[in-house]
Amino acid sequence: MTVQGYNVAVVGATGAVGEKMLETLSKKNFPINELHLLSSKRSAGKEIEFNGETHIVKEATPESFEGIDIALFSAGGSVSKALAHEAVKRGAVVVDNTSAFRMDKDVPLVVPEVNEEDIAKHNGIIANPNCSTIQMVAALKPIQAKFGLSRVIVSTYQAVSGAGAKAVNELQTQAEAYLRGEEMEANILPVSGEKNHYPIAFNALPQIDVFQDNGYTFEEMKMINETKKIMHDEHINVAATCVRLPFFTSHAESVYIEITEDNISVEQIHEALSNADGIVLEDDITNQVYPTPQSASGKSEVFVGRVRKDLDNSRGFHLWVVSDNLLKGAAWNSVQIAESLIKNNWLQK
Amino acid sequence: MTVQGYNVAVVGATGAVGEKMLETLSKKNFPINELHLLSSKRSAGKEIEFNGETHIVKEATPESFEGIDIALFSAGGSVSKALAHEAVKRGAVVVDNTSAFRMDKDVPLVVPEVNEEDIAKHNGIIANPNCSTIQMVAALKPIQAKFGLSRVIVSTYQAVSGAGAKAVNELQTQAEAYLRGEEMEANILPVSGEKNHYPIAFNALPQIDVFQDNGYTFEEMKMINETKKIMHDEHINVAATCVRLPFFTSHAESVYIEITEDNISVEQIHEALSNADGIVLEDDITNQVYPTPQSASGKSEVFVGRVRKDLDNSRGFHLWVVSDNLLKGAAWNSVQIAESLIKNNWLQK
Repeated sequence: MTVQGYNVAVVGATGAVGEKMLETLSKKNFPINELHLLSSKRSAGKEIEFNGETHIVKEATPESFEGIDIALFSAGGSVSKALAHEAVKRGAVVVDNTSAFRMDKDVPLVVPEVNEEDIAKHNGIIANPNCSTIQMVAALKPIQAKFGLSRVIVSTYQAVSGAGAKAVNELQTQAEAYLRGEEMEANILPVSGEKNHYPIAFNALPQIDVFQDNGYTFEEMKMINETKKIMHDEHINVAATCVRLPFFTSHAESVYIEITEDNISVEQIHEALSNADGIVLEDDITNQVYPTPQSASGKSEVFVGRVRKDLDNSRGFHLWVVSDNLLKGAAWNSVQIAESLIKNNWLQK
Repeated sequence: MTVQGYNVAVVGATGAVGEKMLETLSKKNFPINELHLLSSKRSAGKEIEFNGETHIVKEATPESFEGIDIALFSAGGSVSKALAHEAVKRGAVVVDNTSAFRMDKDVPLVVPEVNEEDIAKHNGIIANPNCSTIQMVAALKPIQAKFGLSRVIVSTYQAVSGAGAKAVNELQTQAEAYLRGEEMEANILPVSGEKNHYPIAFNALPQIDVFQDNGYTFEEMKMINETKKIMHDEHINVAATCVRLPFFTSHAESVYIEITEDNISVEQIHEALSNADGIVLEDDITNQVYPTPQSASGKSEVFVGRVRKDLDNSRGFHLWVVSDNLLKGAAWNSVQIAESLIKNNWLQK
């Protein structure tokens, strides 16, 4: 029996997430017939190996999507806004890893472990949530399902790779300069193109993405709004403080939650997490077992540790949630959505 | 007019905090008659410059405190337990920067901006709170005084210097190894003497100090218990998650609070903080102004930014609090207590 192959386009193939997207497609043996690697005009012409074959990256245009079944977009919001509908017009289903369509009412926003069934409602575009949202809702879903969830207060510890390859390079270059006793040069972080830049090496920057009028950053508002949409509950109170830190890969999150049921023990939360798809419980304080950005990097799962009951609120719990922001936070979640489209026959509308 | 001088002993003079203690005494022109630098047997004999004079560090023994007026202890809890009462017996007032006596009922635990009047109640020992507690309560006090305070949920971003000079050296050595593409060796962090050690360079470790039976670390319990004692309110709900991060100096804190008054604006919180002693408001998001560990290092004040109202709870606010853990978090707060003892004639009981 031969597995049917699909014509797949990867838009933003030369970026940090694009690279992980290709690695993931290969590793998970995604059934590919033709693979089209697309990018901006600037990166067109580059050569990329995939499963032993050399592919030449082409400039993404509306015509690039003729004959494409699945288009994985991760080239920034403006590219998605310009080309996603063109791809849909030509018959492709788009899995978009930018913030362009996430809050659109007719675009499903999906973390398969949480709301896979929403994929069925797509009109050609399915949005991949923000990396920091994905890992949090993946960890909270099994808890919400069993014990209800009324409140989330999260403080994040986010890796520089979330800001792209240039930010990764900036951390490396600054750290080298600092250790040589030289001045650190800051040109990218906290936000590429913003007025001010500050060193990230041996520092912490309480700004990810631009500020909104309400005093929150766009990253914080993404966590707040996307969580409610993915978890199908406008009434969950969500608050977020997002901080960029000097490590390369994997975001960590200190998450305080209030559940709706009372008299629930840490053991019951452990049990709910242990039985959940895509979650690995790493919580054994006697042996100092808890996840860290370094221990989670390169892995597909969401890791949870430090589960403990609040000392004052009997419905309150604290969790430490870590996951690779480029894999579950981006590439792997997108490929999971694509796998689900195929598995459930949701490609054709 | 001559300023009276005092005989001052610094116990732990060769440590990371001891060094800052001497710098601070010098910088603030503390009225010193005789300065005695004391340490463990191992460090005795070292020479240290102070205001242009060379002092030889002597081993701390009970007899070292004969004739001493003020003894500043920062040589670890076991040294304080062994020698603080010996110093008091000989007429010294001890300002102790360890956790040895902090929760003792008859030992005042003091952040001068918050509860200076507690110093008057001392029986020879005044405790300096934990670094992460000091900066938080300093920021919260003006808010509590004006608007009441019922709840605190804090996630910390703590510098390696809080774990001493060996941890500072470990971060430096690991970062150098990583950037050369070599394996990182971990021997100190998260907790010196614990079973397992993990790299801190380009990582985040959700463990500071040892775990307690309730699942919280000792650092987290310090923040919880000390906050209630310093702020004179057992009923404030406090929860903490403490995380060690790869920067050298200054702790940052993402603090969620609930105040008791309703209809308070961010501008009113700003005003309360602006008028408070020892607090610097750095909160202008239009110009990306907020404190960072690097911007706060080497300064005595507590810096507050990112003040914003919770989107669901009208009594909830979020703050970002940063301060130099070796200065306000340790040396400067101790010297402030010593200054207050003199200024208020509280040395003699």
